[in-house]
Amino acid sequence: MFRTHTCGELSLKSIEQTVTLSGWVQRSRDLGGMTFIDLRDRYGITQLVFNMDQNVALCGEARKLGREYVIQARGVVKERSNKNPKIPTGDIEIFVEELRVLNKSEVPPFTIEDVSDGGDELRMKYRYLDLRRAPLRRNLELRHRMAQEVRNYMDSQKFIEIETPVLMKSTPEGARDFVVPSRMNPGQFYALPQSPQQLKQLLMVAGYDRYFQIVKCFRDEDLRADRQPEFTQIDCEMAFVDREDILQIFEGMTRHLFKSIKGIEFKEPFTRMSFQEAMSSYGVDKPDLRFGMKIKEITGAVKGKGFQVFDSAEYVGAICAAGCSEYSRKELDALTDFVKKPQIGAKGLVYAKYGQDGSLKSSVDKFFTSEDLKNWFSTMEGAQGDLILILAGDRKKTLSALGELRLEMGNRLGLRKDDVFKPLWVIDFPLLEWDEETKRWYAMHHPFTSPMDEDVAYFESDPGRVRAKAYDLVINGTEMGGGSIRIFNKERQQLMFKVLGFSAEEAEMKFGFLMNAFRFGAPPHGGIAFGFDRLTALFAGESSIRDVIAFPKNNMGRDMMMDSPSEISEEQFKELSIRVELKK
Amino acid sequence: MFRTHTCGELSLKSIEQTVTLSGWVQRSRDLGGMTFIDLRDRYGITQLVFNMDQNVALCGEARKLGREYVIQARGVVKERSNKNPKIPTGDIEIFVEELRVLNKSEVPPFTIEDVSDGGDELRMKYRYLDLRRAPLRRNLELRHRMAQEVRNYMDSQKFIEIETPVLMKSTPEGARDFVVPSRMNPGQFYALPQSPQQLKQLLMVAGYDRYFQIVKCFRDEDLRADRQPEFTQIDCEMAFVDREDILQIFEGMTRHLFKSIKGIEFKEPFTRMSFQEAMSSYGVDKPDLRFGMKIKEITGAVKGKGFQVFDSAEYVGAICAAGCSEYSRKELDALTDFVKKPQIGAKGLVYAKYGQDGSLKSSVDKFFTSEDLKNWFSTMEGAQGDLILILAGDRKKTLSALGELRLEMGNRLGLRKDDVFKPLWVIDFPLLEWDEETKRWYAMHHPFTSPMDEDVAYFESDPGRVRAKAYDLVINGTEMGGGSIRIFNKERQQLMFKVLGFSAEEAEMKFGFLMNAFRFGAPPHGGIAFGFDRLTALFAGESSIRDVIAFPKNNMGRDMMMDSPSEISEEQFKELSIRVELKK
Repeated sequence: MFRTHTCGELSLKSIEQTVTLSGWVQRSRDLGGMTFIDLRDRYGITQLVFNMDQNVALCGEARKLGREYVIQARGVVKERSNKNPKIPTGDIEIFVEELRVLNKSEVPPFTIEDVSDGGDELRMKYRYLDLRRAPLRRNLELRHRMAQEVRNYMDSQKFIEIETPVLMKSTPEGARDFVVPSRMNPGQFYALPQSPQQLKQLLMVAGYDRYFQIVKCFRDEDLRADRQPEFTQIDCEMAFVDREDILQIFEGMTRHLFKSIKGIEFKEPFTRMSFQEAMSSYGVDKPDLRFGMKIKEITGAVKGKGFQVFDSAEYVGAICAAGCSEYSRKELDALTDFVKKPQIGAKGLVYAKYGQDGSLKSSVDKFFTSEDLKNWFSTMEGAQGDLILILAGDRKKTLSALGELRLEMGNRLGLRKDDVFKPLWVIDFPLLEWDEETKRWYAMHHPFTSPMDEDVAYFESDPGRVRAKAYDLVINGTEMGGGSIRIFNKERQQLMFKVLGFSAEEAEMKFGFLMNAFRFGAPPHGGIAFGFDRLTALFAGESSIRDVIAFPKNNMGRDMMMDSPSEISEEQFKELSIRVELKK
Repeated sequence: MFRTHTCGELSLKSIEQTVTLSGWVQRSRDLGGMTFIDLRDRYGITQLVFNMDQNVALCGEARKLGREYVIQARGVVKERSNKNPKIPTGDIEIFVEELRVLNKSEVPPFTIEDVSDGGDELRMKYRYLDLRRAPLRRNLELRHRMAQEVRNYMDSQKFIEIETPVLMKSTPEGARDFVVPSRMNPGQFYALPQSPQQLKQLLMVAGYDRYFQIVKCFRDEDLRADRQPEFTQIDCEMAFVDREDILQIFEGMTRHLFKSIKGIEFKEPFTRMSFQEAMSSYGVDKPDLRFGMKIKEITGAVKGKGFQVFDSAEYVGAICAAGCSEYSRKELDALTDFVKKPQIGAKGLVYAKYGQDGSLKSSVDKFFTSEDLKNWFSTMEGAQGDLILILAGDRKKTLSALGELRLEMGNRLGLRKDDVFKPLWVIDFPLLEWDEETKRWYAMHHPFTSPMDEDVAYFESDPGRVRAKAYDLVINGTEMGGGSIRIFNKERQQLMFKVLGFSAEEAEMKFGFLMNAFRFGAPPHGGIAFGFDRLTALFAGESSIRDVIAFPKNNMGRDMMMDSPSEISEEQFKELSIRVELKK
C-alpha cells in the first residue's frame, strides 16, 4: 500500500496518528537542524518535517531529494506551531520516520508553480509537467465536474446519451472535413464529423425523443487562439417541441450548471433579444450585457449642419461613456487609433464631452452648437461628466465598429468582470444571408433550420425578410451555444434547397439519407449544441480554450508533445492505396 | 405545445382528463363502428379510440392514417373495458376529439415490430427505422443508463474524466492504425487512437491520480461479428496503486453496475484464477464459470495400454458430462464432427459411458478394461449416468479443443444461461509470449506491463517464466476488461525493451515521449480498460455488439445508411497533398 491518506486531507483531527503519504517533492527548505518538504499530490500539499536531532541519517536522505522526486513517507501527524491558513492541511505537519524514494526526477525544464517560468512552446512540449501546475489541474477537475453535472441534468430530463460514429461521411457544412482513407474500400474515405447534425436528426426520426451527447467534433480550419481542430460539443436534439420548449430546457441546463458548479442562482428569466436589436444596440449578434452603454442611432439629429462626414453617411451612431468627460487628448487619440485599426475599420472618431462644470465641447465644434451637443447628450441619456463617442459611415460596418468600441470602453472602465455572468438568448435570426461574391443566398445556421411560420410567405418574394426559428445562448459576449427548430417536412425542405440554389441532384448527394428518412414519418424536432470547451473556459475564467483541454494542439495543428502529425510507413501507404503528392 | 403527456404514462389516475399525445401510428384496427389506433413514442403505446357514432368525419380521418404516420391527438382518458395487462397504459384509452397529421409516412420497407420481417442489409440501410423497434430502443436506453452508472461510480471514487485527443500519433500496439492526412503539415498524418494507453500513463506522470474516460477507440482490422472499426472503452488508470487496489476498485464498479442496472448483488468476492489454472482446467484464458465440467489431464492413466493415439500424445485430457451416458451414436458423431472442424482442429474424439445400469462402455474398448474405465470415471469425479469425452495430442492445442468442446456441451445442456452471471478475475498472466515465426518474444499485454517482482530474476535467463502484474475481468466466458500494473521505472522499461528486441532507436521512436516523461518523476501506476460495447451486449443479452450500437458498420467497414466511406473531391486531394493509388 502506497499511502493511507492523500496530501490534501489531514487536519488536527488526525494528531498523533501514524500515516503514510506518497507524492511529489514540491519544494524543500533546509534550516540547519530541520528540513521541511512540501509533498504534493492531486489533492493538496502536506508539510513533511525531518529533524537532525532525532534522525541524522533520515535527515540526510531528505536533503538529497530533488524537486519532483516521487517519494513515500511514513510518520506521525503533529500540530504545527507556525500554521499556514492558506491551505487546508496548514494546521499540521508530518514528523517523518521512514522515507522511500519511489522515483527520481531530473530537474524539470520549468518551474511547477501556479505561475511558471516556462514559455508556451516549452510547456506544450512537456505538457505532462505543465499539467502538474495547480491552475491547469483545477481547470480539468472543473471540466470533469461540469460534464458530470450536464449529464446529471440531461438524465433527469429523460435525455439519453447516444454515441454517434466518428468514422462518418463527408458532409458539407461549411468547414473542411478531416478524412480517413479506408483500407477495405480502396479509394474511398471516411470523414470525421464536423457535428453529428444529421445523425441526431435521424435519431429524432427514429423516435428517440430526447438525445444528447458530449462529443468530439472536427474542423480542418486554420486555427486561431480559441479554435482547435478537435473540440467538444454538448449536442442535443428533441422531438415534438417548438422553440419555447428548447429555450426552457436549456435555460434550465445553464442554470443547473451555474448553481451546482459556481453557486450562482439567476433570479430573473434569461434576457431575450432579437437579432435586430442586438445588431442595432450592440453592433454584434452576441452582446456582452455585463454593462449598458448601448449604441444609439443619431443620424437624423446630426445631418444638415455642414459636416461632410455626417452628411454623407448612411448611418451615424454613438455610445455614451459615463464619467469619461475628462478623457485626455492622449486617451482620445488612443481610442481613435483603436477604431482605425484594419480589423475595426472606421475612418475616424468624433467625440463630445459634457464637463462636470456643465461645459460642452466636441471635436466638431466648427459645425455644431452647444445646443446641438446638449441635444445629443439628451438623446444618448448622458449627463454632466459623460463622453459621447460617434462613428459614421456604412450602417453595417459602423454598427460593428461601434460594437467593438463599446467593448473596448467596457474593458477600459473595468465593466467586464470575470465573476459577473449575463446570459442572453438571441432569437429571431434571419434565415438567409446574401453573399455578394457568389450572388446567392446562404443558410445563416444550416439548411435544415425552420423559417418562422408567419414569414414563410416571403420565402420566394423577399428571402432576406424571412426569420428563422433559431437561437443562440450568449454569455458575457461569447456565443456558448446555438441551434434551431428544424424543417421536418419534405416539401418545405425542397423549397429551402431551391432558395439556396441547390439542384435536386446536389441536394440528394449532400443530404440524401436525411431526406430519405423524412419520407417515413419525421416528427417536429429541434435542437441546440453548446461549445463545451468555451463553456468550461468561461467557468474557469480562462481566455483560451487551450487551458481547459488536457492535450491541445498548437496553431499549426501540431501536438508538440507527441510530435504529431508525423510520417507514416511505406507499408501503410500501400495498404491504404494512397500516396503523398506534395505541391510544387 | 405538441403533447401534454407521453404515450407511456397515462393510467386510471387520469380518467376523464383531456390530454394531448403525439407519436407514430403503430397499428390501426377498423371494427366498423369503432377504429382503434395504437399510438407509439419512446415511452410506450397508448390506444386511441375513434367512434363512428360520435364523429363520422373524425373517424374517417383516422381510417386514412397509415402505419408510421406522425400524428397529434387530443381527447379524453377513459377506462378500458378490455384491459391489456401487458403494457403499463393498458388500463386506459383515449376517446379522440381532435386529430392532426404532423407528417405522413410511406409504407416502411419492413415491419416495425419486436421481430421484424426485414433482412439484415435492409435494416442496416434504413437503420433509423430499425432503431424504432423496441428491442433496439431498449438496448440504447440500457447503454445510456450503464454509462451514467459507470460515471457515477467513478466520480464517487474520485476519478476524473479527462478527454484525450482523437487526432493522435501513430502508435505501435499491434493493430493497424486509421490515419488522417494533415492539410497544414503536408505529407504528415495523424492516427486515430487504438487506445489512450500512453496518454493515460502521461496523466499519471502529470499527477492526476485517478483518470477515466468512456472513449472511442479505433482499429483498422478485418472485421468479425463482434468487432467494429470504432468501439468504446471504459479506460481507467490510477497512481500509487498495486494490483490489489485496482481489482478492488473495479470489482466495485462491476458490482455497482450489476446492482444498479440489473438488481443483482454478488454475495461472494469475485473468483480469482491464475492464467495457468484457466488454461489447464478450461482450455482458455477466459473460462465460462456458469458451469463446471472442468478439464482434467489423464495422460498418466491412459498410456501404455497399446492405444497408439494416447501413447504418442504429449497430453490426454477429458471432460465429464453429467447425465449424458445415453448419448446416441448420432449425437456422439456430431460431437466428433464438432471437434474435427478446422477451427477446433482435433483429430478425433474418444468417449466412455457409465450407464445408469452400471455398465461401462467406450469407443476404445479394445485397449481398455472396465476397470480402466472405472478409474477414469473416478479421476473425472463422474458417476453412473455420465459421459467422458477425451481428446489427445499436443498439449496446448488439445487443451484449447477441450475448452471448445466444453463450451459446446454447455450449450447443448443449456448450462450457459443468459440471466446467470459469473464474474472472474484471471491473474498471473505470462509477461511474454514466444513467437515461432519471428523467433522473438512479444509482450502478451503491452510493453509497459510490469513483471511480478519475484519473477524479475528470470527476466533474461528464462523470459517465459516471468509472470506479469496483469489481470482480465471475464464474465460468462467473455473478456470484459483487462489491464496491468505498469513499469514506471526507466531502467526496468529498458530491460523490457531489450528482451523484446527493440533497439534504443526503435524504442525512442515508438515510445519516446512516454520514456522522456518517465525521467521527471513517474509514480507507480496501473490501469484497466473495459470493452463498453461488449459489457452492454452482455447486460442486454445480445450476442452481437452491433445490437447495442446506434449506427454500426458492416463487415466491410461500411455504413450502409450513409453509404460511407465514399469518394472525395479533387480539391480535397489537392489540399491534403495526397492521391489515390489503387493496386494493380
